[in-house]
Amino acid sequence: MLTREVLAAEGARGLTFRAVDAAAAVPPGTVSNYFGSRDDLLTQAGARVYERLIPDGAPAAEPGDRARAMRELVERIAAFRSGYLALLELRLEATRRPELREVLTARVRADIDATVAGHAAAGLPGDATSVRLLYLAMNWLIVERLTLPGVFTGEERDALVTAAVERLAG
Amino acid sequence: MLTREVLAAEGARGLTFRAVDAAAAVPPGTVSNYFGSRDDLLTQAGARVYERLIPDGAPAAEPGDRARAMRELVERIAAFRSGYLALLELRLEATRRPELREVLTARVRADIDATVAGHAAAGLPGDATSVRLLYLAMNWLIVERLTLPGVFTGEERDALVTAAVERLAG
Repeated sequence: MLTREVLAAEGARGLTFRAVDAAAAVPPGTVSNYFGSRDDLLTQAGARVYERLIPDGAPAAEPGDRARAMRELVERIAAFRSGYLALLELRLEATRRPELREVLTARVRADIDATVAGHAAAGLPGDATSVRLLYLAMNWLIVERLTLPGVFTGEERDALVTAAVERLAG
Repeated sequence: MLTREVLAAEGARGLTFRAVDAAAAVPPGTVSNYFGSRDDLLTQAGARVYERLIPDGAPAAEPGDRARAMRELVERIAAFRSGYLALLELRLEATRRPELREVLTARVRADIDATVAGHAAAGLPGDATSVRLLYLAMNWLIVERLTLPGVFTGEERDALVTAAVERLAG
């Protein structure tokens, strides 16, 4: 998605109709024909990026398997670098745009609730609070990796994911 | 610090010499006399904001006191809204600026190491991994609160901080 690439590369301030036109190599004005306003462009970008970041499938049963699955999930999200950075840009932009904030809040809340419900349905150890704490810790680990990759080594990151799963929902 | 206010309000892309001149109500060109380049301006902003966010004093001994102290720390950081948002903007800008990335990496790494050392010196339960997991979870909790405040209620946030301290270093 070009909107996402522009967001990650240029920041929310750089996400203009003209910039997406240029990235898509289409005539000026093409993108603004699809979106009524910049608010729409940002809001749709937020909704779409989010779809690709949501994990699919049921959680694994064994603690060792779950730690591995979580390491893979963190890898997968971090590998979708432009998507995750675009979401961070959108979060910052949301502090200035109530409509975007509303869309993102609903998506994030629904995602957390679904993760909590999936965890409970699978009969795994750890309550809603555990799952939420995992969500918090894993998100900042990805921020750390994508923005300041030298803070933790790959080995340290893996150890943190494993420990988070074991200590919070082991 | 005006640089920080401009960063939080306008994003890293909006942090120009001219914008800081305007925010400071000084003649155009004043700020560029103090900073050799925009890289310098951003890098110094990063270093200074960080200083104000670092917790001071030794950690409390009792788990209940520590949970309360952590809730207060999270409150204090979240209340310094423009500082925290400016740091997030700087992290995103660091993905595009190696010099800024180096400065921020050194600061964050030193801060985490100092927190781990302080925790150990106080003889508190929980190892370096616990302290790092707390750092991760608390940072994203603050991101959530400042960017999408409707995702968790204040009560839910307090419960998450208390549970994080108890379960990770209780």
